[in-house]
Amino acid sequence: MNLGLIQMNVIDNKESNLVKAEVFIEEAVSKGANVILLPEMFNCPYDNSYFETYAEADGGPTYKRLASWAKKYGVILFAGSVPELEGENLYNTAYVFDQKGDLIGKHRKTHLFDIDVKDKIRFMESEVLSAGDSTTVVDTAYGKIGICICYDIRFPEFARKMVLEGAQVILVPGAFNMTTGPAHWQLTARARALDNQVYYGLCSPARDESALYTAYGYSVVTNPWGEVISELDEKEGVLVQEIDFQSQELIREELPLLKHRKPGCY
Amino acid sequence: MNLGLIQMNVIDNKESNLVKAEVFIEEAVSKGANVILLPEMFNCPYDNSYFETYAEADGGPTYKRLASWAKKYGVILFAGSVPELEGENLYNTAYVFDQKGDLIGKHRKTHLFDIDVKDKIRFMESEVLSAGDSTTVVDTAYGKIGICICYDIRFPEFARKMVLEGAQVILVPGAFNMTTGPAHWQLTARARALDNQVYYGLCSPARDESALYTAYGYSVVTNPWGEVISELDEKEGVLVQEIDFQSQELIREELPLLKHRKPGCY
Repeated sequence: MNLGLIQMNVIDNKESNLVKAEVFIEEAVSKGANVILLPEMFNCPYDNSYFETYAEADGGPTYKRLASWAKKYGVILFAGSVPELEGENLYNTAYVFDQKGDLIGKHRKTHLFDIDVKDKIRFMESEVLSAGDSTTVVDTAYGKIGICICYDIRFPEFARKMVLEGAQVILVPGAFNMTTGPAHWQLTARARALDNQVYYGLCSPARDESALYTAYGYSVVTNPWGEVISELDEKEGVLVQEIDFQSQELIREELPLLKHRKPGCY
Repeated sequence: MNLGLIQMNVIDNKESNLVKAEVFIEEAVSKGANVILLPEMFNCPYDNSYFETYAEADGGPTYKRLASWAKKYGVILFAGSVPELEGENLYNTAYVFDQKGDLIGKHRKTHLFDIDVKDKIRFMESEVLSAGDSTTVVDTAYGKIGICICYDIRFPEFARKMVLEGAQVILVPGAFNMTTGPAHWQLTARARALDNQVYYGLCSPARDESALYTAYGYSVVTNPWGEVISELDEKEGVLVQEIDFQSQELIREELPLLKHRKPGCY
């Protein structure tokens, strides 16, 4: 498995965002990627004021483009996230397509991001979005892969549930900001990977200081020993990282954390 | 609350270890500590071959000395850990005494350390020790404090349970080694503190390259924002760190992770 992360800049123009996403997907494929992750809200600026305007129902134009790319490039596409409209509800939703372009998974952000750090950052997703209510683990040609969105990564229980459901890799489209990013992004990616003995891939939009919400960037892949094995800086870019399942198996044998769990005590 | 960590060297002489522990406790008290944590197996070399010889029953000589120090110095004493004998079973046990010298808590290491990293470190506690089976949170004059021992910290569920039981600070006597220490000690201390919005204090024996098992050292205090706020190096030493509960409360208001948990989804 070769994981490609697409750290693209997202602007206030859906069509431009889609065109750019495909250009980067093509680049990742040319570098060997066969599993590709887009960032959170890759077709829409990350701000409550945009979600309704940009939202589409399941099966809409963005969905169709994504499915066609997965098929055209023969990749498993974890399509970051997009605003999804169902009835009167908006969701922050990640679609997953297989190499034939068939939908094999759909995750709705379950933990909505409501934060109010004095004089630094205020964001209240729950004022506009509705929440999903479950973990999502998809069965792919390369093994079981979990997906959760941004703030979902904050909850160790959620990660553990995906791992107990068989996830060997967990992918996280996410847009941490300039307060939480430097403080918590890499730390959380390393610790979740270590605790659960899985690979994590976190994919952020590129940093745009002029945006209403400035994403941190620094998309990263961490391994089951808790190490950063690949990362980008704050600028646009593509990262492709091989995932070594043999090394994962060895770590799980030598330091059998998952085997040593005592569920009766929790 | 002023937390004192005693990073002492532990040798193959119980009486010397006890004398040294008291000297360091006195030093910590002189620096303002009112809650004191000793390292894992502070009265006994950390190796399976020593535990039976050094073990005492509950209420034995070491226990009595610990109780007398807590009273004499007027501190809450989280007495690292010692080998405890009950019937035919040995445990890795932490006693907790209040300022009057009364026992207010007792934790038996629940996750035994069985590791076998090729060509680096092999240790099998379960060949000699029996395991505890529950979390331990004690109510003190300074608030609720959880305690777990070394490998127990590896399990995010165990930390979460202590926090849901009200722990605002979690103390961990631990002896990570020269493989897991540099890789995981500080990372885990920071991530557990961040995820649970609590303070962590980890107390190791000092590093002794000539010991059968070489502890990492680097006793550390981390805060609810996931930062290291104080740490020692590998040598013997005492660290005293004030614990700021107002800052903890503010972080829990601004980034309400514990409130945002969705137990129905896990």
